[in-house]
Amino acid sequence: MSLKSNISYKILNPPIRTLLGPGPSNVHPRVEMAMLAPIVGHLDPYFVTVMEDTMNMLRAVFQTENELTFPISGTGSSGMEASLCNFIQPGDVAVIGVNGLFGERMADVAERCGAVVEQLTAEWGHIIEPDAIKAALKKHKKVKLLGLIHAETSTGALQPLVEASRLAKEYDTLFLADTVTSLGGQEVLVDEWGIDICYSGTQKCLSCPPGLSPFTVNKKALEALKSRTSKVQSWYLDLSLLSSYWSSSRFYHHTAPISMVYALHEALALIIDEGIDNRVQRHLKHGAALQAGLEAMGLKLHAQEGHRLSTLTAVRIPEGVEDLKFRQRLLNEYNIEIGGGLGPLKGKIWRIGLMGHSSTQHNIILVLSAMEKLLQLDGFKVNPGAGVTAALKVLSSN
Amino acid sequence: MSLKSNISYKILNPPIRTLLGPGPSNVHPRVEMAMLAPIVGHLDPYFVTVMEDTMNMLRAVFQTENELTFPISGTGSSGMEASLCNFIQPGDVAVIGVNGLFGERMADVAERCGAVVEQLTAEWGHIIEPDAIKAALKKHKKVKLLGLIHAETSTGALQPLVEASRLAKEYDTLFLADTVTSLGGQEVLVDEWGIDICYSGTQKCLSCPPGLSPFTVNKKALEALKSRTSKVQSWYLDLSLLSSYWSSSRFYHHTAPISMVYALHEALALIIDEGIDNRVQRHLKHGAALQAGLEAMGLKLHAQEGHRLSTLTAVRIPEGVEDLKFRQRLLNEYNIEIGGGLGPLKGKIWRIGLMGHSSTQHNIILVLSAMEKLLQLDGFKVNPGAGVTAALKVLSSN
Repeated sequence: MSLKSNISYKILNPPIRTLLGPGPSNVHPRVEMAMLAPIVGHLDPYFVTVMEDTMNMLRAVFQTENELTFPISGTGSSGMEASLCNFIQPGDVAVIGVNGLFGERMADVAERCGAVVEQLTAEWGHIIEPDAIKAALKKHKKVKLLGLIHAETSTGALQPLVEASRLAKEYDTLFLADTVTSLGGQEVLVDEWGIDICYSGTQKCLSCPPGLSPFTVNKKALEALKSRTSKVQSWYLDLSLLSSYWSSSRFYHHTAPISMVYALHEALALIIDEGIDNRVQRHLKHGAALQAGLEAMGLKLHAQEGHRLSTLTAVRIPEGVEDLKFRQRLLNEYNIEIGGGLGPLKGKIWRIGLMGHSSTQHNIILVLSAMEKLLQLDGFKVNPGAGVTAALKVLSSN
Repeated sequence: MSLKSNISYKILNPPIRTLLGPGPSNVHPRVEMAMLAPIVGHLDPYFVTVMEDTMNMLRAVFQTENELTFPISGTGSSGMEASLCNFIQPGDVAVIGVNGLFGERMADVAERCGAVVEQLTAEWGHIIEPDAIKAALKKHKKVKLLGLIHAETSTGALQPLVEASRLAKEYDTLFLADTVTSLGGQEVLVDEWGIDICYSGTQKCLSCPPGLSPFTVNKKALEALKSRTSKVQSWYLDLSLLSSYWSSSRFYHHTAPISMVYALHEALALIIDEGIDNRVQRHLKHGAALQAGLEAMGLKLHAQEGHRLSTLTAVRIPEGVEDLKFRQRLLNEYNIEIGGGLGPLKGKIWRIGLMGHSSTQHNIILVLSAMEKLLQLDGFKVNPGAGVTAALKVLSSN
């Protein structure tokens, strides 16, 4: 036995970033402390009380009475996959809104589940219009599922869901909404809006480290699950197995990520303490302030007017400014992370997140000031202080 | 808008358990502290250095040179699913050793991937014999994959892998080994033993919170992946996408669970500091001491002699002792968690883990003493001190 173990490693010593990209966002100290709570077994009676509290608080944040409301043991994308692989059987038609990277991903995942996918495309940054949804639902004899991205992280667009949900009901179609970048920041009303299947991620507006996907399904979706004629292709994400663990039977499925559930518990407790209404208002005001600031600096917002996220703002990179170099300077000189564009928007936009614990007045002032300085260095003309002044005006309004 | 947000929750305040069940194990304070390290973005240059260190240390712990060696963003079961869904195409034959719950699970997962599964069964607690493996490989024109559970968490049996691996090569079959309850505790030599695909979990002998699945595949497996004619059914676990993120291209796939990767980094650093050899020896000695103690108390070990895990010991529940009540008293009066039996072994065995940071001399003394006391209360005759005395004798030997 000659074991290779003379490996060297560096001591963990991360820089302290202000995370204003598309996620992860900064984590509140209470959430960090929660991860230090002693590990107990995943079937420990104490852990059961934590699970119950977590499910209860998740229901409040999703604004739902759905019994099956729990965190999936994977990142947001695992929630997307669970939302599709449990409900799609090979040959089912799925209508998916594709107006950004996450819509593209949803279509890809649905295809891997065997769906015949009808892509509803729109320009990246625009919303999917109800007329197009209606036409697609009408076109097929039976559409199993309509999937839309509520908050398109790749474009900054906020998709309206109410009319889409009504149409899904009219055509007896399951309605799936991705709320990864909206839950805990934008208004999300699962029951009132009639969303049948909904998932999110922890590292955006919930301000928890990445690693879990909050998930909720209603009775209609569960009935569709029961009527399946084939096994769900994923064992790990099989809702009928997961629901036996996240229910009073607590039947062992897999070992829940205990520390991450503690973290989510605390992140949700912070939301309950703040009040969901207050939290949505905070994100609204901060998003508006940032956007006013960016426009006052002479920059153009990318997403369709009237349909912009508060939680994530896409702004066009001005001519003559080099994307990567600009973001590297922001990171290296100011310790601020913002996101670049993805796919067709690569090099064309920046994505600035104000999510959860990162959505603060001082972060708005900070990022606008740092951007002003760096833009000036790149020869882009900005009226000194214009951005911060415009933002402060919004922040001080009622 | 009438938001439901008058939800109450309890402040996190877990009991401090000594975790001697089938996992999770107790977490070292250095690992807890690592989770407090500031979150950075998943594409941050700093995080790239953490990923590299983590992959390097994982290679050392798996004893492999495999380039693609990284943690999957899910618990151990997600590693099992990734090991199958990437390599199995519908109609492929998979030979799976089923001598416990996790072998059963592997067979189930393989079937969901479309495999024609040949189950190699053995009594729960016994190993799968090479003759049976050979016969199964011979029987089919082409077997795509042979899957075995190295350390059967449900029975305490340690499956020998060397001859199985040789047979897999002889019959040109991919060889998959589940090392969830062995990696970082029992000897695991991926390259020397010729394992093509191997996964584990973080919450057992690595003594990290649950949430990640260390994973490694060699070139032979990657070539099989490249020769697929259909897309992998899981997007979340698609290795060709995951490998673009966990490689020098760092192409965005999903948001890695930053804090969990920090924790794994630190847990691996602890192994490097201890020395892999020393660590395996520690587990060996502690397992032997516990088993000597249990036998000296008059209890019977469940797993086949000569094939017992050091990391997890299955012991038969004596007549007249009530399983659940006994474990509840151990938990409530001593804050010690041990596991019960699963499936056909429910009510028949207890499973006592000595994994990673939980594998200490004082935990052996503690659990034997507490068990002696509770067994006596249940009317089972134990020579006072016999268990601890026998264990200490092993512990003090060279």
